[in-house]
Amino acid sequence: MSGLTQDNRPHVVIVGAGFGGLEAAKALGGESVRVTVVDKRNHHLFQPLLYQVAMAGLSPAEIAIPIRSVLGKHANIEVLLGEVTEIDLDDQTVHLADGDYLAFDYLLIAVGAQNSYFGHDKAWAPHAPGLKSIEDALEIRRRVLLAFERAERELDPDERQRLLTFVVIGGGPTGVELAGALSELARRVLADDFKRIEAKDVRVLLAEGADRILLPFDPELSKKGAEQLEDLGVELVLGKQVTDIDADGVTIGDERVEAATVVWSAGVKPHPLAKRLGTPLDDRGRVIVGQDCAVEGYPNVFAVGDVARFTTPDGGVLPGVSPVAMQQARYVADAIVRRTPRAERRPFTYLDKGMMATIGRSRAVAQTGKLRMSGLVAWIGWLVIHLWYLVGFKNRVFVLMQWVFSYVVYRRGARLITDQSQRSTTSSGS
Amino acid sequence: MSGLTQDNRPHVVIVGAGFGGLEAAKALGGESVRVTVVDKRNHHLFQPLLYQVAMAGLSPAEIAIPIRSVLGKHANIEVLLGEVTEIDLDDQTVHLADGDYLAFDYLLIAVGAQNSYFGHDKAWAPHAPGLKSIEDALEIRRRVLLAFERAERELDPDERQRLLTFVVIGGGPTGVELAGALSELARRVLADDFKRIEAKDVRVLLAEGADRILLPFDPELSKKGAEQLEDLGVELVLGKQVTDIDADGVTIGDERVEAATVVWSAGVKPHPLAKRLGTPLDDRGRVIVGQDCAVEGYPNVFAVGDVARFTTPDGGVLPGVSPVAMQQARYVADAIVRRTPRAERRPFTYLDKGMMATIGRSRAVAQTGKLRMSGLVAWIGWLVIHLWYLVGFKNRVFVLMQWVFSYVVYRRGARLITDQSQRSTTSSGS
Repeated sequence: MSGLTQDNRPHVVIVGAGFGGLEAAKALGGESVRVTVVDKRNHHLFQPLLYQVAMAGLSPAEIAIPIRSVLGKHANIEVLLGEVTEIDLDDQTVHLADGDYLAFDYLLIAVGAQNSYFGHDKAWAPHAPGLKSIEDALEIRRRVLLAFERAERELDPDERQRLLTFVVIGGGPTGVELAGALSELARRVLADDFKRIEAKDVRVLLAEGADRILLPFDPELSKKGAEQLEDLGVELVLGKQVTDIDADGVTIGDERVEAATVVWSAGVKPHPLAKRLGTPLDDRGRVIVGQDCAVEGYPNVFAVGDVARFTTPDGGVLPGVSPVAMQQARYVADAIVRRTPRAERRPFTYLDKGMMATIGRSRAVAQTGKLRMSGLVAWIGWLVIHLWYLVGFKNRVFVLMQWVFSYVVYRRGARLITDQSQRSTTSSGS
Repeated sequence: MSGLTQDNRPHVVIVGAGFGGLEAAKALGGESVRVTVVDKRNHHLFQPLLYQVAMAGLSPAEIAIPIRSVLGKHANIEVLLGEVTEIDLDDQTVHLADGDYLAFDYLLIAVGAQNSYFGHDKAWAPHAPGLKSIEDALEIRRRVLLAFERAERELDPDERQRLLTFVVIGGGPTGVELAGALSELARRVLADDFKRIEAKDVRVLLAEGADRILLPFDPELSKKGAEQLEDLGVELVLGKQVTDIDADGVTIGDERVEAATVVWSAGVKPHPLAKRLGTPLDDRGRVIVGQDCAVEGYPNVFAVGDVARFTTPDGGVLPGVSPVAMQQARYVADAIVRRTPRAERRPFTYLDKGMMATIGRSRAVAQTGKLRMSGLVAWIGWLVIHLWYLVGFKNRVFVLMQWVFSYVVYRRGARLITDQSQRSTTSSGS
């Protein structure tokens, strides 16, 4: 690939087009470098709204955008759909699954994280999908809607209750958002659609190992968030670890909960590429980077976002949230554009603008600096910020319309059960 | 199931919630009958716009609506997600895949059609998906987008041309719509997105066995349609039968066309349930019905739409189009509501309001009575009628917005490659 063009500009390879990779590519657009962005998928995904796809509030196309359409206007950027299997730091090459390779002058590793089931990946993952991709979200949607379909016809009361019990594991922002949206979907939309199911039949549990939800938030906001969730009918199970997940339900501490639908939001681990770099990793498997986001010994190789461990001068570790990835990406792009030698790079500093989590359709908690907000005001702030950062003008308009629509009439448009295995041309028909 | 409630109202079972089944159910809503609608899927699909999902112009949720949400307001209608495996006319029961069964007083069979490959289903279907379900549409979308991704990186000129050659088989309205939309997508959107692909590199072929496309239309309109397609860059291959389809391309007559993406739109056959009824079928396998849409020997069993063969008094056979299914459905619902004995039923008459096909984003052909239209006027008529019949207010608004958007900026929002087999929790991560 790299031999295709005669070009003296340095070649920057960006692996991963999530928040970090896309931000870096945008910052390098039009600069005097050649950029190749490699991703296994053809789209950038706005993960903060992925729970809405899982809960049938949004369609995939509303929170995802083709990488080519974001970066297409820059003549110096190429986009490549492919899976990176190996990175050879000594040879300065990136190897793809199809046998092709790319030689780089600069490398940015921005491959993110994936679900981690406390060492039980194989046993638990099939029963408790996480929420990392569009396919995951559609699978969760399918499971939730199918559970209602089956419950509607089930005559055995125990099995019926199991079908109507939903467990979300992990009380971070994503788990809270999922549990809140799930309870609303189940009680206000689906209980209407299904004639034999009433809102009171539905149980939604949110299990968190710590003694409060939204751990990174101020305890006051955790309490507000918990109250808002309970208002929506979510049962909180705090201070207990999940010890088992199987096809019939979960065991939380020593309590068994029979549940047909379990969603995992309790932990992530870095993408497996981190391990294959051969550079030092932290205890969670993240690539340890210096104050310039570069990897030890390789001043032209950077890692940003969830796959990197960045230790601040005061000894803290930057959290796995999108603003960290995006700010690091812009910092790295700047260092590349200026060709700054390692010794002269000023340290990266993270500007923490705060954090927020939404709980149902008009409630949220938010904190920024010393400011604490909850309820409708926080929700409006959440909506504005999320629309702002959603890539693509059209997507913003459509998502806003979906929200206005579901706010007014309380319906979910995307309650579709789809399943690739049911293509009519390969099965017995419609 | 049928033993659940004490109810003296007759029980109407409707199998299939396509145009016919849904229309009948709506007409029976609020009447003095109990209705159960059984469908293998949880959504009604607006098939006339399915080609837009395949061509990344619309999202699935914009042309599909949960059956429960359409029929939920009627207290006398139950919706059941299930697959009908057997219909026992003597026992007057419908049997489901899960072992459950429904006893009926009236039965409406509205299961539609599926793709038929001229006797080559097994050999051809994997290489040439048809367009009958959302999953089919997403699979076609995936193949088209992946072909471009691969062509962008392909150095061998022959393989590159094969990747950029698209063949649509069947020159009926769906084939014409697909070919036109595919050519526009490829030339105006994708050729922009992909830096190494130019519009002139792309070949889109439309193969039709007859000597003109749009066979049911007036020959004058076939000619107009052909001209409009050719303006869009579609190559027409007329008067030749497809004799082979394999992984590398198709053989049309004795001409071999190497093509990575082939779409089937050349023939349908009735749903396999038709065969299992044990009543007389026509040469295409359709259930032969009388002038009252009822099956020979069973005055309480009706079949409508694509699965039925209805012969008009002048010896013609009603075509497999949605207006036929919907008008028949309303006729049958009326006969059921009035409990009209067979002998007293007036014959069903089909009111043909005309037909239309769209060709690209602002062209169409239409004929109604003696009126013939083509070009922009026909396209506006097409748009108005399709929005009118699209079920659900929200869907109409969103589809209209999508059209306005893509009309103005010529982009497709839904260019996502998704694949259930790529769920991050079961694979090696994103």
